[in-house]
Amino acid sequence: MPLIVHQHSKAHLYSFRGLIYFRDLVDLRSTPVTASTPTPRVAVAFHSGYGHTAVLAEAVRRGAEKAGAEVAFIPVDAITDEQWAQLDAADAIVFGSPTYMGGASAGFHAFAEATSGRYLTSTWADKIAAGFTNSASKSGDKLNALNFMTALAAQHHMIWVGLGLAPGWNALTATEDDLNRLGFWLGAGAQTPQDGGTETVHSSDIATAGHLGARVAVQARIRVAGTSALAA
Amino acid sequence: MPLIVHQHSKAHLYSFRGLIYFRDLVDLRSTPVTASTPTPRVAVAFHSGYGHTAVLAEAVRRGAEKAGAEVAFIPVDAITDEQWAQLDAADAIVFGSPTYMGGASAGFHAFAEATSGRYLTSTWADKIAAGFTNSASKSGDKLNALNFMTALAAQHHMIWVGLGLAPGWNALTATEDDLNRLGFWLGAGAQTPQDGGTETVHSSDIATAGHLGARVAVQARIRVAGTSALAA
Amino acid sequence: MPLIVHQHSKAHLYSFRGLIYFRDLVDLRSTPVTASTPTPRVAVAFHSGYGHTAVLAEAVRRGAEKAGAEVAFIPVDAITDEQWAQLDAADAIVFGSPTYMGGASAGFHAFAEATSGRYLTSTWADKIAAGFTNSASKSGDKLNALNFMTALAAQHHMIWVGLGLAPGWNALTATEDDLNRLGFWLGAGAQTPQDGGTETVHSSDIATAGHLGARVAVQARIRVAGTSALAA
Amino acid sequence: MPLIVHQHSKAHLYSFRGLIYFRDLVDLRSTPVTASTPTPRVAVAFHSGYGHTAVLAEAVRRGAEKAGAEVAFIPVDAITDEQWAQLDAADAIVFGSPTYMGGASAGFHAFAEATSGRYLTSTWADKIAAGFTNSASKSGDKLNALNFMTALAAQHHMIWVGLGLAPGWNALTATEDDLNRLGFWLGAGAQTPQDGGTETVHSSDIATAGHLGARVAVQARIRVAGTSALAA
Repeated sequence: MPLIVHQHSKAHLYSFRGLIYFRDLVDLRSTPVTASTPTPRVAVAFHSGYGHTAVLAEAVRRGAEKAGAEVAFIPVDAITDEQWAQLDAADAIVFGSPTYMGGASAGFHAFAEATSGRYLTSTWADKIAAGFTNSASKSGDKLNALNFMTALAAQHHMIWVGLGLAPGWNALTATEDDLNRLGFWLGAGAQTPQDGGTETVHSSDIATAGHLGARVAVQARIRVAGTSALAA
Repeated sequence: MPLIVHQHSKAHLYSFRGLIYFRDLVDLRSTPVTASTPTPRVAVAFHSGYGHTAVLAEAVRRGAEKAGAEVAFIPVDAITDEQWAQLDAADAIVFGSPTYMGGASAGFHAFAEATSGRYLTSTWADKIAAGFTNSASKSGDKLNALNFMTALAAQHHMIWVGLGLAPGWNALTATEDDLNRLGFWLGAGAQTPQDGGTETVHSSDIATAGHLGARVAVQARIRVAGTSALAA
Repeated sequence: MPLIVHQHSKAHLYSFRGLIYFRDLVDLRSTPVTASTPTPRVAVAFHSGYGHTAVLAEAVRRGAEKAGAEVAFIPVDAITDEQWAQLDAADAIVFGSPTYMGGASAGFHAFAEATSGRYLTSTWADKIAAGFTNSASKSGDKLNALNFMTALAAQHHMIWVGLGLAPGWNALTATEDDLNRLGFWLGAGAQTPQDGGTETVHSSDIATAGHLGARVAVQARIRVAGTSALAA
Repeated sequence: MPLIVHQHSKAHLYSFRGLIYFRDLVDLRSTPVTASTPTPRVAVAFHSGYGHTAVLAEAVRRGAEKAGAEVAFIPVDAITDEQWAQLDAADAIVFGSPTYMGGASAGFHAFAEATSGRYLTSTWADKIAAGFTNSASKSGDKLNALNFMTALAAQHHMIWVGLGLAPGWNALTATEDDLNRLGFWLGAGAQTPQDGGTETVHSSDIATAGHLGARVAVQARIRVAGTSALAA
């Protein structure tokens, strides 16, 4: 069986028939999915300028679905009333944006401003939030974009779930195939060459985004279960 | 009855015989405390240079206790082995530091570095985290200190709970007695005159810190209940 | 003569016939304006959603002009080719934006993205940069907006000049009429009530923005003189 | 002659007999060094936990010296009165720190706090400032450390000079030997394996730090010349 496992920290990365899958054993083991467990609803609200961030958004979606969530996939520059309703109904929202010129994109900021009505009414209070971003440099100013997303989430009284992966590619024998190869914690950070198409989004970054989606689904499930238990 | 109620947003601030209390009606209402609900364990890990941040730490402690938590109170510059064990056992850790010269204090950073062993073993993964800070200016660089705390928490794979209060003192008829009078969201921000003693910590800032403690206790309770329910 | 002087730190604030002027004695004294001194060119590139930030931009303009600069005044959401040329020709660019939902406005980010061609060619390298922002809260997330502006400036290889004022309103006898009443350093931060019109922009914030304009003009003059001297 | 030139953007990187040198042609060309040009005084004030940051500090020193500066080299955890005097006399100060647990090191923060007397008296006002940092991850939270350094510099009313290099290693055919291989702008960011000794500090990161030293020297020279010209 052509299974190549790159192991780093708690997470496993599988390559099978050219596709990359991931599994964070600890997280998924610790959250048994039983018949009575409510399905967490995760929304991925992202802006993508040239398609790279959309590739990551897809990975977040797949990760969340594999972890048992029902996912709403929302490109924010064409958001519909139905999708706003999906955001309002979600247990968790994962924000995604390129990092452009030192911060999140104008397209994502326009979405953030469009949430101001919900901010005033605390509509999203206590939902889980998370974030991911992409730019052409290994570091770049991606941390600014993630810091902004935590500020946005905090204004909505949301609860921030970080990436939950040890950093990769940061030891003598480590490689760029490690999960979290760039070493982010607040969220998932990806790097795609400035002259590369969407097919050049790095497999590790895709897997890392997938991990974020799964982690958010898991955390949303815990939160929903907790709220239900206390209301019982 | 000499009860003065300053109402702002969802939160209520009571002044009674010179003491200030707070109650966030919505949060507490939504989390019924029944006999079977486990008691959340909250730790307040703070550094205080001249005692002002300690006043806020006390307020966080009282807020968490009023919301039903068992609280460990830990000045990090004299932390003991027993207190490290309390941090390891906590469901939530609230970080506190003054903002000095553009960031958190050296004393708090020394504590942060001392957590690096626990970082490597993900000991604090999935605990709830929150933060508060104090400086002499209304804004100052407090947001840098809070951003640092979110980074520290994310490195530990913790889950960040923000202040959860609408901003106060930001409308024509608003006053500095509003909760969250300085307008922070990531955590609680306080302002004490540079030439003022610990008795000059502002009553609104104390109440705001108390709110943060209560909110953390409530969120920790939900998380503990959720983990228990899924493990059942 | 109805002259009221609010003195704080090195700067003086004058109120005359309802208008507020300022003068930073030290800065201006240290930069004599002689016949042979070239006139520094300062551009104010700002986005204003409801007019409050435009009031600050006007103050920056007046401050820079009083300090001897020739000023281009550029609302970036309607920027013309001629104004792009003014930016390219400027010795210094002062960025301005509201802080909305945790960061600079989408309108300002759109401008930032539109500078990417100049980023690729380093067109603005070594120009002086500075920034100002406004929001409804005393602190709010204004520091995020200023941090973003420093990142934008750094991507352009610009040189960042901060506010250059001690913080005001941060001592027992200090008042909100102090310059830099909110305590910012990276740039000028203003606070206007969320329900207040442009006439409610605070006089201290206007004077503080004026100081920033003057400081930028002074620093641009030094830079231009230095470059000329070395090229002689 | 075994000269290998890696060309990227405006900067050139030379490898000769195993040592790496750099030269930024444009910057150096634009600032002729004549007999009458005053020598800029640059101080490198850094904390290094395990020696990696000290390697970068050495590179900054060499870069500044090659560009004609007189350099004071100051490990801040053992700073002497004479070295404080060197800082006070410097035209430019380059800050250096590891990034530990999400921010600058406690050792560097202790130094920052020790500057508070000079902050109160504006002793360092209008000096040039810059910064560099190192951590084990490609990105890590290095941007937080650099953002903190800009805040520290702004509190001192210093003028921030960024790295001034286009990002490297961010295109399809780019390599990790590019200058600024990690893509930083606010300052120089380096990455050294967590299990690697000081000999594993990357040659590109060393060259990048050297570039920063040279750039700071050049900018300090311009500033000194400008101040002199205006005082004439």
